[in-house]
Amino acid sequence: MHVTLPDGKQLDLLQGATALDAAQAIGPRLAQDALAATANGELVDLLSPLPDGAQITLITKKNPQDAAPVFRHSLGHVMSQAVGEFYKAKGYGPDSIKRGVGPAIENGWYQDFDLPEPLREEDLPEIEKIMREIIGRGLDFSRREVSKADALAQFPHDPYKAELIRDLPDTEALTLYQQGDYVDLCRGPHYPNTGKLPQAFKLMSTSGAYWRGNEKNPILQRVYGVAFATQKELDEYLHQLEEAKRRDHRKLGKELELFTIDPLVGKGLPLWLPNGTILREELTNFMKEQQFKRGYQPVVTPNIGNLELYKTSGHYQNYSDSNFSPITVDEEEYMLKPMNCPHHMRIYASRPRSYRELPVRLAEFGTVYRYEQSGELNGLTRVRGFTQDDAHIFARPDQIKQEFLSVLDLTVLVLKTFGMNDVRFRVGVREAGNDKYVGEDAYWEMAERQIIEAVEEVGLPYSIEAGDAAFYGPKLDFVVKDVLGREWQLGTIQVDPNLPERFDLTYTGEDGQDHRPIVIHRAPFGSLERFTGILIEHYAGDFPLWLAPRQIMIIPISDDDEIQMNYAEELRSELHAQGLRVEIDDSKNRMQAKIRDAELHKIPVMLIVGKQEAAGREVSVRMRSPEGTKERKGVKFDDLKAELIERRNSRS
Amino acid sequence: MHVTLPDGKQLDLLQGATALDAAQAIGPRLAQDALAATANGELVDLLSPLPDGAQITLITKKNPQDAAPVFRHSLGHVMSQAVGEFYKAKGYGPDSIKRGVGPAIENGWYQDFDLPEPLREEDLPEIEKIMREIIGRGLDFSRREVSKADALAQFPHDPYKAELIRDLPDTEALTLYQQGDYVDLCRGPHYPNTGKLPQAFKLMSTSGAYWRGNEKNPILQRVYGVAFATQKELDEYLHQLEEAKRRDHRKLGKELELFTIDPLVGKGLPLWLPNGTILREELTNFMKEQQFKRGYQPVVTPNIGNLELYKTSGHYQNYSDSNFSPITVDEEEYMLKPMNCPHHMRIYASRPRSYRELPVRLAEFGTVYRYEQSGELNGLTRVRGFTQDDAHIFARPDQIKQEFLSVLDLTVLVLKTFGMNDVRFRVGVREAGNDKYVGEDAYWEMAERQIIEAVEEVGLPYSIEAGDAAFYGPKLDFVVKDVLGREWQLGTIQVDPNLPERFDLTYTGEDGQDHRPIVIHRAPFGSLERFTGILIEHYAGDFPLWLAPRQIMIIPISDDDEIQMNYAEELRSELHAQGLRVEIDDSKNRMQAKIRDAELHKIPVMLIVGKQEAAGREVSVRMRSPEGTKERKGVKFDDLKAELIERRNSRS
Repeated sequence: MHVTLPDGKQLDLLQGATALDAAQAIGPRLAQDALAATANGELVDLLSPLPDGAQITLITKKNPQDAAPVFRHSLGHVMSQAVGEFYKAKGYGPDSIKRGVGPAIENGWYQDFDLPEPLREEDLPEIEKIMREIIGRGLDFSRREVSKADALAQFPHDPYKAELIRDLPDTEALTLYQQGDYVDLCRGPHYPNTGKLPQAFKLMSTSGAYWRGNEKNPILQRVYGVAFATQKELDEYLHQLEEAKRRDHRKLGKELELFTIDPLVGKGLPLWLPNGTILREELTNFMKEQQFKRGYQPVVTPNIGNLELYKTSGHYQNYSDSNFSPITVDEEEYMLKPMNCPHHMRIYASRPRSYRELPVRLAEFGTVYRYEQSGELNGLTRVRGFTQDDAHIFARPDQIKQEFLSVLDLTVLVLKTFGMNDVRFRVGVREAGNDKYVGEDAYWEMAERQIIEAVEEVGLPYSIEAGDAAFYGPKLDFVVKDVLGREWQLGTIQVDPNLPERFDLTYTGEDGQDHRPIVIHRAPFGSLERFTGILIEHYAGDFPLWLAPRQIMIIPISDDDEIQMNYAEELRSELHAQGLRVEIDDSKNRMQAKIRDAELHKIPVMLIVGKQEAAGREVSVRMRSPEGTKERKGVKFDDLKAELIERRNSRS
Repeated sequence: MHVTLPDGKQLDLLQGATALDAAQAIGPRLAQDALAATANGELVDLLSPLPDGAQITLITKKNPQDAAPVFRHSLGHVMSQAVGEFYKAKGYGPDSIKRGVGPAIENGWYQDFDLPEPLREEDLPEIEKIMREIIGRGLDFSRREVSKADALAQFPHDPYKAELIRDLPDTEALTLYQQGDYVDLCRGPHYPNTGKLPQAFKLMSTSGAYWRGNEKNPILQRVYGVAFATQKELDEYLHQLEEAKRRDHRKLGKELELFTIDPLVGKGLPLWLPNGTILREELTNFMKEQQFKRGYQPVVTPNIGNLELYKTSGHYQNYSDSNFSPITVDEEEYMLKPMNCPHHMRIYASRPRSYRELPVRLAEFGTVYRYEQSGELNGLTRVRGFTQDDAHIFARPDQIKQEFLSVLDLTVLVLKTFGMNDVRFRVGVREAGNDKYVGEDAYWEMAERQIIEAVEEVGLPYSIEAGDAAFYGPKLDFVVKDVLGREWQLGTIQVDPNLPERFDLTYTGEDGQDHRPIVIHRAPFGSLERFTGILIEHYAGDFPLWLAPRQIMIIPISDDDEIQMNYAEELRSELHAQGLRVEIDDSKNRMQAKIRDAELHKIPVMLIVGKQEAAGREVSVRMRSPEGTKERKGVKFDDLKAELIERRNSRS
């Protein structure tokens, strides 16, 4: 047999040769360094026979991350062995431990156990310690193919293993992997030796899991681990995990009283609490301001519509999975609106239009309802009712580029305002040879060209994704990366000649004839719910002044002192009159406790006022920022007020 | 027999005596002046026998308006006679005219005819002329009681009369009234003589009406007239009618492009066009500003809720006629929300509350849906979906008066801002002896006392309406009179201990114990739809600057002149940057046509700019106001800009 190396060279090998044999054929140093391999693009270990004619690459200690699923799987076996030794030390025999499945998963692995007594979270460090010992022992992994009968004989006291083996097809070659005295039924692949496994791993948690996912079966104990090629990667991963937990918008949403979800009101239907509503209104006002500057016209349309409307638009037929069930009114049927588009089409059609007034940009903060399965619902980011910062631009075909540029400009401004500087665009175009696309070639070429020209002019990174267009026209998605490196697709801009067709929209051209406008759909935030969810995590609840629901806390040093209390009230009243959100902490707590409380509620500005401050119309300011809290004493109140107003107004 | 006069005196009369007999018994002068009478509170004529023992009053030429239904009915007979003479003059015989019913109605009467050729609108003045002649003839009305057979014999050629007579019960005494040669089957009452009828009448219109309202029957021609005791009253009525037509919010809504109702979207579900939306947002922003000043907290809740929520609140059971049909989601049922209250109750309940934070004032511009029969729908004032400027104040019982005062203060401010200065309050309290009211006497006394004290402090007119309370607590309605003298009930403030009970709401009192808060419901606008409809009619579309959707039109004198056009654009841009809504009329029309067009669209400010203005950075201003348009030439642009910003900001 032969295999081909990445440089195109062929190696002649004996029938049944493994990747280790291939490495040895190249040189002993490589055989020493090899950890795993790929054959025809699939990960394999050094112990399994290679298929004849395979294209192979060898993974060595220079690029161990390429073998991550392999070392994660092997560490799973090491953990399983370590759990056995842990219980042995407690006096339990080897037959008292039974094992379910144990696959590699994203970032790590898990293993299911039926244990003589449950493993506690605090046992995990001890298991980790034993795992490190096993790694230190430098045990070879070995592999052997066996018959079903031999495999069954290997696990005489483990009913789970026995069940798995019996369920396997007779034709399948079963394999056992072994390191030291630990043997497991396993397809592999594995590392050659425990000594080569990375030390950058951590056991994360345990949970209950029904055997084979069936709730009629016994519950096994599942132990999760994560592993990376280097300690740096593990540290980063653990940090991100902790950050993600700290920033979780559901947790912060509760702590900062931003929103709540109440089963009596309904699943996936958030109630915006006062603090969240203030934030939402700041977002809305910001967008309204921008839209006014850019010549959008606001509209408001109802949350329901006649079914005939959605049959005309095609939403009724095409999105039946996400439509709510109809509402009967007299002899008519209505539906919660899943999109605002049909309503806006009818507004455009409510009177004749001339080429002179195009583009017409109709904008609505429209609340729409779409069914999602209850298991999919998640805080604010996956809901059943949400408000889009929606707009439909009715344009002449020659205006597409100009309108795209204006929408991109708005989008980039929006994202930069929130410090989301890592933005890229995905331009979805037609795929050659796919016949799902409707419309003439000339239209597609014209629309795709205008979008790409616009994106080029903006100068931000973009990719062209063939096949990502809608069936009726090209589109553009924008993707931002948050501080944790997670990517969020926020909004879509779509070019749509389909709805104007379905609603028979026209404008009178310069030639006096009827022409068909193009519609551009756009929503820079996407949905206020989702965007707020993302913002909470992006800022970890530490909102900039203009967004912070609670902006200023005035903390009198002594609340018995009438002068201080009057002064605090004077400041509150002056700041409130400027539209700033300001409170006085007049609780009986001590000053330090009040400061801690304000920190806990992530209030960006604290004004501490005592006798001295009152006398000089001054304040001591504690100003929170991502870099930490800065304190300034003896600041003139009027200067501070001007500073706060300026910061609020400039949204900086 | 005897009758009793208003002063208590009794008159002895012969059996079968009429009101005329009674008047004559008092004195011949009174008999001469008498027009009609009341017997036991019901209008009767001078010709019908009075019931024995009746309490009577006489209506004379001093108070003819008290007999309005009588003279309207008699004028109907006079019109019917005049129509006969009109067709006779055209050569038609008396049998060619057949008559349906002809009752007195509000402000006038109508009469149905089957005519040999249709009456045209332009014939009506001629009929009026003949009516005035008949009045001039001074014909006595006479009355006689007849048998069914005699009655049938009276109208041998009129199948409608015959049908009516045949359908009357045999026991009924039929009466015929006659003036001159005109006889009609009629119950009366009528005036004694055509000469005493007022001349202040007008024939308004004709329309088709099915005989007996059944669309299987022939269509008759219905002629409408109105009449008043004096010409002044008639003139006022006609003026009001014209004004109401001119101000009709449905007509102006279309002309000014404020809203549209589209059957494909749904009946009673207005689409707010850009101009209307701008107005709506100005109202919303105004209210939000006031609510921020007054310590309200904004919330946003979904437009649907689980049916269980409305069962808890009682809305499901108690308002089934106006609830939309349920929406099934998985195994649950949901409903469009008819009110925001239940959602707000759940927000209050979302965490523990302390007496220290009460009152909690939750405010939402919440869109609700209530079924109305399609025949009841009317523009913006009667709809199926509307947005309330809703708030719920959760207060301790001792805070009711203070909160009521604050709500009344806000309400009065709102109404005065719109120049609605004619406001009165109706305080709905319990009715003695009615057992529909729940709750303890002490609670009712406490709540009613606090409301009345608050209303007293405000110092505006109010009335106490016993029996107008809700079953669970007292309430207050406010009623405004518009420029046409029409009264509108705008909003209600209600004290409600019932929902807190149903939702088991509590707060921890100073005593550490759980207490039940009181809820105050309030909505100063009532609904944005209805309030906007009323505002359109109130202002006749001539909105003050801050509300006007289109505020400023710049009119270049010559649109060929680049200097003028650049100057116009410079002004537009500067005003737009201040958030003002400004356009340039760059059409090819002449200046006068542009001014007319801006007037037609009720744009409050026109800036006319020519060469001279551009040179001096000046403008010619045409400023519209209810008093007419004022023109100022050579105004410095910067001064004008400051003036407009000041007017907009002060909402004056």
